[in-house]
This record gives sequence, structure tokens and C-alpha cells, in this order.
Amino acid sequence: MPTTHYDTPRIVLIRSRKVGLINRAVQLAILAYVIGWVFLWEKGYQETDSVVSSVTTKVKGVTVTNTSTLGTRIWDVADYVIPPQEKNAVFIMTNMIFTLNQSQGHCPELPDDNTECNNNSSCVPGYVSTHSNGIQTGACIPYNSSIKTCEVFAWCPVEDDNHIPKPAFLQAAENFTILVKNNIWYPKFNFSKRNILPTFSSTYLKNCIYDAQTDPFCPIFRLGKIVEAAGQNFQEMAVEGGVMGLQINWDCNLDRAASHCVPRYSFRRLDNKDSANTVSPGYNFRFAKYYKESSGIETRTLIKAYGIRLDIIVFGKAGKFDVIPTMINIGSGLALFGVATVLCDIVVLYCMKKRYYYREKKYKYVEDYELVGLLG
Amino acid sequence: MPTTHYDTPRIVLIRSRKVGLINRAVQLAILAYVIGWVFLWEKGYQETDSVVSSVTTKVKGVTVTNTSTLGTRIWDVADYVIPPQEKNAVFIMTNMIFTLNQSQGHCPELPDDNTECNNNSSCVPGYVSTHSNGIQTGACIPYNSSIKTCEVFAWCPVEDDNHIPKPAFLQAAENFTILVKNNIWYPKFNFSKRNILPTFSSTYLKNCIYDAQTDPFCPIFRLGKIVEAAGQNFQEMAVEGGVMGLQINWDCNLDRAASHCVPRYSFRRLDNKDSANTVSPGYNFRFAKYYKESSGIETRTLIKAYGIRLDIIVFGKAGKFDVIPTMINIGSGLALFGVATVLCDIVVLYCMKKRYYYREKKYKYVEDYELVGLLG
Amino acid sequence: MPTTHYDTPRIVLIRSRKVGLINRAVQLAILAYVIGWVFLWEKGYQETDSVVSSVTTKVKGVTVTNTSTLGTRIWDVADYVIPPQEKNAVFIMTNMIFTLNQSQGHCPELPDDNTECNNNSSCVPGYVSTHSNGIQTGACIPYNSSIKTCEVFAWCPVEDDNHIPKPAFLQAAENFTILVKNNIWYPKFNFSKRNILPTFSSTYLKNCIYDAQTDPFCPIFRLGKIVEAAGQNFQEMAVEGGVMGLQINWDCNLDRAASHCVPRYSFRRLDNKDSANTVSPGYNFRFAKYYKESSGIETRTLIKAYGIRLDIIVFGKAGKFDVIPTMINIGSGLALFGVATVLCDIVVLYCMKKRYYYREKKYKYVEDYELVGLLG
Repeated sequence: MPTTHYDTPRIVLIRSRKVGLINRAVQLAILAYVIGWVFLWEKGYQETDSVVSSVTTKVKGVTVTNTSTLGTRIWDVADYVIPPQEKNAVFIMTNMIFTLNQSQGHCPELPDDNTECNNNSSCVPGYVSTHSNGIQTGACIPYNSSIKTCEVFAWCPVEDDNHIPKPAFLQAAENFTILVKNNIWYPKFNFSKRNILPTFSSTYLKNCIYDAQTDPFCPIFRLGKIVEAAGQNFQEMAVEGGVMGLQINWDCNLDRAASHCVPRYSFRRLDNKDSANTVSPGYNFRFAKYYKESSGIETRTLIKAYGIRLDIIVFGKAGKFDVIPTMINIGSGLALFGVATVLCDIVVLYCMKKRYYYREKKYKYVEDYELVGLLG
Repeated sequence: MPTTHYDTPRIVLIRSRKVGLINRAVQLAILAYVIGWVFLWEKGYQETDSVVSSVTTKVKGVTVTNTSTLGTRIWDVADYVIPPQEKNAVFIMTNMIFTLNQSQGHCPELPDDNTECNNNSSCVPGYVSTHSNGIQTGACIPYNSSIKTCEVFAWCPVEDDNHIPKPAFLQAAENFTILVKNNIWYPKFNFSKRNILPTFSSTYLKNCIYDAQTDPFCPIFRLGKIVEAAGQNFQEMAVEGGVMGLQINWDCNLDRAASHCVPRYSFRRLDNKDSANTVSPGYNFRFAKYYKESSGIETRTLIKAYGIRLDIIVFGKAGKFDVIPTMINIGSGLALFGVATVLCDIVVLYCMKKRYYYREKKYKYVEDYELVGLLG
Repeated sequence: MPTTHYDTPRIVLIRSRKVGLINRAVQLAILAYVIGWVFLWEKGYQETDSVVSSVTTKVKGVTVTNTSTLGTRIWDVADYVIPPQEKNAVFIMTNMIFTLNQSQGHCPELPDDNTECNNNSSCVPGYVSTHSNGIQTGACIPYNSSIKTCEVFAWCPVEDDNHIPKPAFLQAAENFTILVKNNIWYPKFNFSKRNILPTFSSTYLKNCIYDAQTDPFCPIFRLGKIVEAAGQNFQEMAVEGGVMGLQINWDCNLDRAASHCVPRYSFRRLDNKDSANTVSPGYNFRFAKYYKESSGIETRTLIKAYGIRLDIIVFGKAGKFDVIPTMINIGSGLALFGVATVLCDIVVLYCMKKRYYYREKKYKYVEDYELVGLLG
């Protein structure tokens, strides 16, 4: 169509207070929904971006233990954090089973349904199962004064992990502190921030401990408090270990000042406490320290380490005004406005007593040309 | 406009079966698209969220090796999993090059194009390149009876990694099993679930092995089967190592019962097998065990560890009914309805024989006021 | 409505060049916005997906140090990369504080405000604070000829980390190289690619070093260059350590050929250099090497390792044509077209001199039936 014309729909204006009110009410409801819900509540005018994050942690704390096998012993960070550094996570050993002075050789397997034996015929040379500590030699030898088990070639003596120390060996881990340094970045908006807020003084940072009420932005966490905040019992958890999530939520409205963009911490246990329906409940793994005797023989101390693995999970969305989503939502809103007219038309043309009168005004009936031709 | 009026467009109803049918057909197609594709297939009525996840792994298995340098030796989890625990990943050593009893000192460099020499003038004191094992002293000394190389200050003797053991040293790793415990969370819907489904019995969990057909939800994987499922040959891969992705897909429709939200496992090789176009094919790294001799000298065993790193990649989207996306899609759908009218108008007003007749009915031509004034 | 009718709005065509031009201009602006911005610039016709990625790294480089405590010593990969392998990250030690030959026992605590003492009454048996190296025994003993501190049960002698070596111990780390192998995957489009591009020759890969200008796709990075590209001073950073982000951006338009989908590297320092407002600036952690003396006593070398942790952050979005977003945007665009008519109507009906004339043509006033009845 050329620019010399301007085409606009022809409108019937029906002077009816009733339908007029219905029409305005429906339009108002749609307007309220579009503005109130889409724009104000859900911030439909914003472009969003997901967080990119970097986390470092630092654990502090020492404790002393006193046992018959190890004597009095001090434990510091280098002893109980394994491996010494990880990305977005830290493992703090709270309990352990030591097997000192293992060396490669022959010894009786740990007794269980499959390894107890009466004579050599019960043992198969070369047999190895998923739960074996070594490879069977075929001999049946005494495990202790009352039980005989199949002999294995293994790191000897084999580990006996049937009895987990209770209470946990390093129960004082409850008081260890963890400093979490988190740096986030929203690439789309080139906005970055740290969880160590610029308003903090050095003195505050040296002494504060996170508390949901009193110190919600302090980046130093007491291990016991984290576990407690997740509704767990620390001393129970310390025995068999577990995985804790320290969640940092960085939901930010970047249309407001950057100082309003602050982390919110929350805590959740990530493994299942309910040991009824679980293989290997809690969290543990094995590692070894290797030594070389002066005779040249390699020995090792095997440690089955139970403990708390803290996963630092950073998530969040930032929103900032952008034309595209705004237009998409305005477009949808406008289209919904058409619904008001459609709804009212239904009321007016189908439900009202005077529907035939209104129909006549709204519609112009045009016979098909051919029919018209025939009739005319 | 006040509430005393109700405005609705005036419509021409053209009694034409042909155009009527076209109009309805186009409207039906649009309706089918909006309902069938946008709503039913793509679930346009749902709000979506990305998964937040936590993974722990536990490897089981022992094997025995018999070589001239190490003698008969048993390998268990503490020996071949390095580091002992990682987040979302686990490395299982399958092959290695040992260099025993290294100590700091002077020794001949490994022979290659740059280090072979005839006399001291070929060697530059202090020279070090990217592939050096140490720093050249400037001397040219015999490496073996036939070759002379530049002397270096290094951990001596230097590692000779030209010959990778074949078949792989720990070829029995094929039978090692990995228990993967995965806990996921959809923050927006506060929905969490584990990959150990509540329907599993403890007995099942103790004995099952993942199989795509028979046990698709068993969280215990045989290493050989993972590699095979990715279309690779385990024994080939074990020699030079590689990176395997264990992908857990948690696509969930949260409008249905939570029990329908289950993990789907898939396997992919993440590094490139094709060694033609690759620097350092496979996957390997070096680590050392440090010892102190009784004389106080520090020695180490350098191990170049080849093996399979298993990255556990958790991804997925959950969808749940939400008003906003529903309204956006309804809005867009309604706007598309307008297209039906536009299309039919084009047909009626431009393509049909009787177009002038229809145009006359649809349009009312109004002369510009001024022209009217002049003419009138 | 039955298929025998075709309903189309009745239109007034006002022959006014002025309003016609306004109308076309507004429509053109909206069309330009929808096509130009939404479709061409923001690619509103594309479905998008986030990247899934796997990263492995390999560090190369040796250096020699010469100090009074350790003598001349060579450092290679197995010595300075801790732990030997990590997922999506690598730590390279650049500086360290050694505490040799620690064993469990009693010794004076490191002097500070809380630990210096004059007599036993200043020391509390069993006292331990966050910054303690051990547990106080209650005695006050000489630390050196001038200072007395409380005795602790700890790994003795306790570490003295007041003086960080300057320049950094391993300042030659500047020349270490890191090979980054990155494999990405867009699950929705089943598209995967590596950062080692198929066009590279083996020779190129063996010798290239990343440079933003000359070698923007070389996957081998010189540590010093990474730090420099982030606007930092390597030698300064090496002293106290730091966290560097190596960002790989895989924004891809999958409607074009796969060869256009290439990684773009960028570098950022992730921790805060400004040490004024920071607890424990830089990046460091403690680890220990454990030895067993021939007498059976366990000793350890405690190392406080400062260094550069390189986080490899992979992000990006891929877009590919899809019907749903195209339709949503077309729908919104069409709805915006309605705005053109609304705007022009406002001009014509409220702003123009001849507005009453136009209103009369556009609107048909219909009295309410009841009123009509009353009047009629």
C-alpha cells in the first residue's frame, strides 16, 4: 500500500455501561498482570546471565589426640586436609582407620562369609573379588586363635575397617574454621564482585565468624556451625563422614547499585544420611603414606579417611534492563490485550439479550459475488 | 476512553465458502502449531531450571603385576587412584613408567636431536629448554656405550619415557568398579534427588553392575564397560591413557511425579584418540614419592602415570508449569492468529477475480479533509 | 463461526499524505527493529545452548635454585605441581617457606601478641586459638636469646612464616609453559569440538606459544604471558601467589560452518591484588612430605606453598536456527505492528485539526439498545 493512504480499522462504539465496564475490567486485569507480574515481579524487562565463579578456601585449626597406637599426636592443616588444595571444594578429615607398617607380602584375608575357610580346598589360587584386599594364594591360614581365612598376597597386614572409632578421632574439627574467598563474574554485563565486601575492615575479617543473624556476610565459617545450619549433628556426621554443600547465591539486580549485589549463604547436606538404603554411607576414601625402610623395603601407612567434604556451590542469575526481553514481553502483553476485545465480543454477541442488535452493528454481511450475481 | 463506551472493530462477514475454508485452514494450522509444537512438544508452558549437582566416587579392585624391576607387586586403590579424592572426577592409573631412586645430581641427559654431543663445545652451561630434564652443566659425557649426551644437573638418573609398556601395566583395571553417588538439585523448584533410587534394595546395590539394557539405573560401573560403551578399546586406551566422560542427564518434567525424574547415563571419550594431530596424546602426568635416606639425602621415585580420568558431567534441565512462559507463548500464538487474517486478506483482495468487489466492502475511502474542503 | 463465512475487519482508508507517512515511518521503524536488532544482531531466530566442557593441562619447565638451607636444587614438574593433576585447574608453586625436619614434640610457639610471655602464669595449659601451631602446655620458655613464648605441643620446630622470600623462590616459573587441552560439547545440538584445531600441523603444535596477535589459537601458554595479559606483574604475583583465570569463550553460531566455531582466550586475575582489604592475600596452602626415620620416628617437611593457581573457565553459548524462538519473536514483532496503528490513531484522532472529521469516519456510534428502545 502506498504512503498516500492511512488505513485504520473501523470501530463500533457501543454506548453500553455494562459492556464498557466488563471491557475495561478485563483490560485492567491484563494490564495489571503484564506490569505487575511480568515486569515488576519477574523482571521481564531484564536480560539475564549466569554466574562464572572462582573459589579458594583456607582451613585453620589444630587438635591433639591420644590413642594407644599413635600415642599423643598433634594434627594440623597439613595433616587433615587431603589433598592440600582443591578447586571449589575442601576435604577435612574427621575420623580415620590407621593400618601402620604395611608391606607387600602374604597374610590372612579379613574374615567374612567368603574368606573364612577350614582347609586349603576352600581357597582358590588367583581368586580376587571386588571386596578383596589381595589375591588368594590358595592356602588357608589362621587369622587369629579361633578363625582361619584364605591367605592373600597383599599389603600386609590387611586393613580391618569393621570398627569405626566412635566418637570421631578428630572430634575437635567442629571448631576448625574455613575462610572462603569467592570471586564472581557475569560475562554478559562484565560485572565482577568478591564475597569479601569492600565495607569490611581488616579487624572485622580477622575475627568474625559467619552467623546467619549477626554476621551474614562474614566469609569465615566454623565447621560445626555449617553442619548445624544444615540441620545435622556434627559429632554424628564426623564418625562416618559426609558431603556438605556451602551454597553461595549471587542473585543480583544490576539495575540497582552494585553494593546491593551481595552473596547469600546457605547450607545443605548433599549425601543421604539415611544409611538404610545406601551403599557405603557417609564419605570416605583411602590413601597411603609411603616410606622406604633402610633395608630398601617399601612400607606404607594406609589411612581410610572419613571426613567432611565441603563443596562450595556458587549459583545465581543477574538481570539487567535490555530492549529485547522488554519488547518480547510488551509484544505478548499487547497481544493479550486483544483477548479483552475477544472476550467482550463473546459476551456481547453471544450472551447478552440484545445480541442480535449488536451483531447487526458490528458485522456487515456481504453475499458472495457469484451468488449476488446470480441473485442480482 | 471512558467506561461508558465499548469499542469493537467492525467486521465484514463475506459469505464465501472458498475464502472461509482458506481462513479456517490457516487458523487451524496456526492453532495446531501453537498447541502441538510449542505447548506439547517443546513444553512452552514450563519454566526451566539448570541442574546443580554434587558427585562422589569410590573405586574398588586389586591387581597383581610381575616385572623385573619391581618384582611381584600388588596394587590397590590407595596405589592407583591419584589424587585419592577429587570433585566430579577420578583418575585410575592403568600404565606407568617408573624411575626409581632419583636423587639430585649430575648425569647425562636423555638422548635426542638437541642433547646428543661429541664434545663439551656442543653443550651450553645453564641451557634449559622446554623438554629438558635439568640444566646443562656444559660437559659432554657418555649416556651409554655408543652415545654421548650433554650432562645436566637434575633428578638423576633422568626418566626415559621413550618406551611405554605394552600391554598396559595394570591391564586388569578393566575389571575395577566405580560407584558414582550423585545428588542433584533444581534451586528454582527446590527439587532434589539422588542417583541411588529409593526403589533399590541394599542387596541389589551391593551386586549390580551398570548395563544399558539390564541395569540402566545401577550406579556401579565397570571401567571396561564404560570405555566399551563409548566405542573404544579398553586395552588400547589403557596404554596411553585418556579422558572419559560419564554423562548423567537429569532432564525432568516436574509436572509429573518425582519418580519419573531419573538419571540417564551415557559415555563419551573426551580426548582425541587420533594421535596424528595431537600433542601428548592420551592422558598422563608425573608425580613423585619422596623418601629420605638414613644418610639424610632425599630420594624420590618418579612416576609418569598414564591412565583413565573419568569426568562425571552432570547436566539437565527441569521444567515446571509457570504462568510467564505460558503467557508469552499464548501472546505470540494470538499474534500469529492475526497472520491468518492478513494472509486471507491478501488472497481475497489481490488474488481473487472478484477482488474489487471485496475491496469495496472492506474499505471505506475517506478523502483528506482539505481536499474534501477544496472539492466540496 | 462456520466455514461458510470469512470475517475481516472493516478498514477506513484515509487519503492523507501526512498521516500516511507517519504511519509508514512508524511501521518501518518497528520492522527495522524487529529484523535488524532482534533477528540480525541478537539472532532471535536461534535456539541457544550452554557449553559442556572437559579440560586437561600439562605443565613443562625446570629451574634450579641455590639457597643456604637446601643447597643447589633442581625443580621439575613433579616437584612444583600440587596436586599432580586437577580437573579444570592447575597449581604451580612459585614461592615457598620450608620447615625441615619437623617432629611431634614440645617447643616454643611463634612470638606474637598472644604468645609472648614472661612466666608460666601467662600461658594456659590446653589453650589453642585459630592461629596456634599447637596446644599450649602452660610453660613459658625462651624462643631465642631475647624473647620468651609459651611452650606448645606441636610439630616442632614451628613454622616461621613472617618472612616471605623476595624475589620469589621459583621466579623462573615465568617461562614455564602450560598446554591446555579443551574439549567442548553442546548437548542440544550434539556438536563437539577441541581447542586443538584440525588445521594445526604437529610441528606448529610442538613449537608455538600463545600470543593474542600472532598465535591466537595456539593452546600452549607461557605462564609469564598469561599474567602479563591480565595486566599483572609476574614477579610481584609470584611472591604471594594468586589465582588466575584462563577464560575460554566458545560463542558459536552453528548456522555457519563448524570451522568458524573457534575458542577465544582471555585472562583475568581472580583474587584481589589490593592487599589492604584482604585476609590472607594471594594464594597459598600448606602441605607436608612425611618421612620415617630409621628409629621409627615420623618426621615431616612442612611446606607453605605460594603460587599461581590457574582456573580454566570455559563458557559460551551456541545458537542454531529453531522454529520456536523465531515464532515467538515474529509474534512479538507482529504485535508491535499493532502499536503503529495505535500511535497513528492517537495522532489522527486526538492531535490533528480535523480530528472530529476522522473520528466520525472511524467510529460508528451505537446507542445502548435499552436507551434506543426508550428513545425509539
